[in-house]
Amino acid sequence: MSLSTIYEPIQEDLAEVEAGLKNVGEVSSPWLAKLLEHSLKAGGKRLRPALVLLSGRFYNYDLSHLLPVAVAIEVLHTATLVHDDAIDHSPLRRGRPTINKLWGEDKAILLGDYLLAKAEELASDTQSLWVIRRFARTLMTIADGELGQAFGAFNLEQTREQYLARISAKTASLITLATESGAMLSQAPEEMVTALKEYGYNLGVAFQIVDDVLDFVGDEAEMGKPIGSDLSEGTLTLPAMLILERYPGDNPVRRLFQHEGDRQENIKLAIELVRSSGVIKECYRVTSDYCVRACRSLELLPDKPARRSLKELAQYVVARQR
Amino acid sequence: MSLSTIYEPIQEDLAEVEAGLKNVGEVSSPWLAKLLEHSLKAGGKRLRPALVLLSGRFYNYDLSHLLPVAVAIEVLHTATLVHDDAIDHSPLRRGRPTINKLWGEDKAILLGDYLLAKAEELASDTQSLWVIRRFARTLMTIADGELGQAFGAFNLEQTREQYLARISAKTASLITLATESGAMLSQAPEEMVTALKEYGYNLGVAFQIVDDVLDFVGDEAEMGKPIGSDLSEGTLTLPAMLILERYPGDNPVRRLFQHEGDRQENIKLAIELVRSSGVIKECYRVTSDYCVRACRSLELLPDKPARRSLKELAQYVVARQR
Repeated sequence: MSLSTIYEPIQEDLAEVEAGLKNVGEVSSPWLAKLLEHSLKAGGKRLRPALVLLSGRFYNYDLSHLLPVAVAIEVLHTATLVHDDAIDHSPLRRGRPTINKLWGEDKAILLGDYLLAKAEELASDTQSLWVIRRFARTLMTIADGELGQAFGAFNLEQTREQYLARISAKTASLITLATESGAMLSQAPEEMVTALKEYGYNLGVAFQIVDDVLDFVGDEAEMGKPIGSDLSEGTLTLPAMLILERYPGDNPVRRLFQHEGDRQENIKLAIELVRSSGVIKECYRVTSDYCVRACRSLELLPDKPARRSLKELAQYVVARQR
Repeated sequence: MSLSTIYEPIQEDLAEVEAGLKNVGEVSSPWLAKLLEHSLKAGGKRLRPALVLLSGRFYNYDLSHLLPVAVAIEVLHTATLVHDDAIDHSPLRRGRPTINKLWGEDKAILLGDYLLAKAEELASDTQSLWVIRRFARTLMTIADGELGQAFGAFNLEQTREQYLARISAKTASLITLATESGAMLSQAPEEMVTALKEYGYNLGVAFQIVDDVLDFVGDEAEMGKPIGSDLSEGTLTLPAMLILERYPGDNPVRRLFQHEGDRQENIKLAIELVRSSGVIKECYRVTSDYCVRACRSLELLPDKPARRSLKELAQYVVARQR
């Protein structure tokens, strides 16, 4: 199932989102225009704007409100990626050099700030205080989650609950914002808003676990970035947690986190162990559970093409290779 | 003239601002609480919240709207300082170690993001779309101005107009937001809003030029941070520009920016040259002009204690040593 097939019910309006993103890049400062062009370039999955539009398809589909939110959410997402890459000193994203790699971390910090503010400005175009506040609060949640991750770096004493709380904050919150905003702005009844919100939450958690798995088993060329980056930053994700559970004594994850032995060698061994043991299978069992829960929420909704798309999207998220 | 005397007409309400800032720090994540406590600690001049309150004093002084804006503007200002310090790798701010020094640049980036979002949330408490948009647009202006500065680093070919545009964007915009918001939220007549906006703009430009001067002639202990940081980051400010104008041939600023000779030696010589030549006097002539223009705008306003405070504040800004 390809994304373009899934996005079929909103294909034309996604083109408007793309135009809106291009519009964000049309500014008078040449330096800013250059950075915006690079960071907002087409080529991403545009998952979050698609979720806004698809979630808005069930009741009063009003593009004049949905469009600014769809653009705003992609701009906010881009801002967090630009800052994440600066924080991790990442050289590549989607196969292209990052802002920090090309222009330095200082520029990445400032561009991210500009994008965060632009997202708020776009959110305010809805004239909905609810949307505006949800945007602000979601960014607070993301930053808090990322801080939790940063302060927890190289800490072996983390529970699965803490992992779940972290990925809920740093990833699922924004995906939930997308589906909830789409529902709210199309005047969906309260229980349908809740259903789409729960869909978004479960999809978001599944999405992040797959991301964490791909960091071990993904193909670097396909993903457009190096694998093993979570381990090298000391971020304990589900696959590494399962290794710690299965091999409670000595293992390369433990050695890496305790700074014992050669760092690169430990990362290499940890990746091999994740790949050869059954932990990947277990991770996919967990993601499938979230995926099933996401799809179950959809059953409440009217039977429209958008519902099939959202269901397929949940399957796509689990099956994706990048 | 001390700040506490100038702030006299709003003393009690500034205590509410302080309580509001303390409230921002009351969050459930222990890591976030720690960073917020450090970054929002009392001790700053609280210039921007004071300007919101004083500018709101002329017509309908409604604290329920002014207070969230006053707190929001200090939170936004703090966010930009936290990011600036991360960008410049600054070890000290107001005599205390910076967030990046104590916890690393990654935490500083994330804390700044949290604070930016918090500022927008607080701005939304006014329920005024005008305030919300002005906040978002001001942060866009600041980031754009800072990017211009970053891309212009070590560039000798900069005009005074470019310098003025840069400091207007990075500093005067936020101070203008403070005075304009105070006026707008107290339902000041349009011409009074314009007067307070112009006051804010001229005060903001004067404030930044004094900042740039203090980076050459200030007392490190008094300022709580090292001097010469602009030069060392390749930021061309008014004192250095005047050196280039007065000594069109070889001079330490030119050598530093062209990476000729010993860097530290060039910085030391440039500071000495700025101090011994008449450029500081000329800088203060320029700031005095802005200060006079700021005070002229005030003449339109009703004769209230807040007007005297704003006038004294303009004098304070020029005379300040930190």
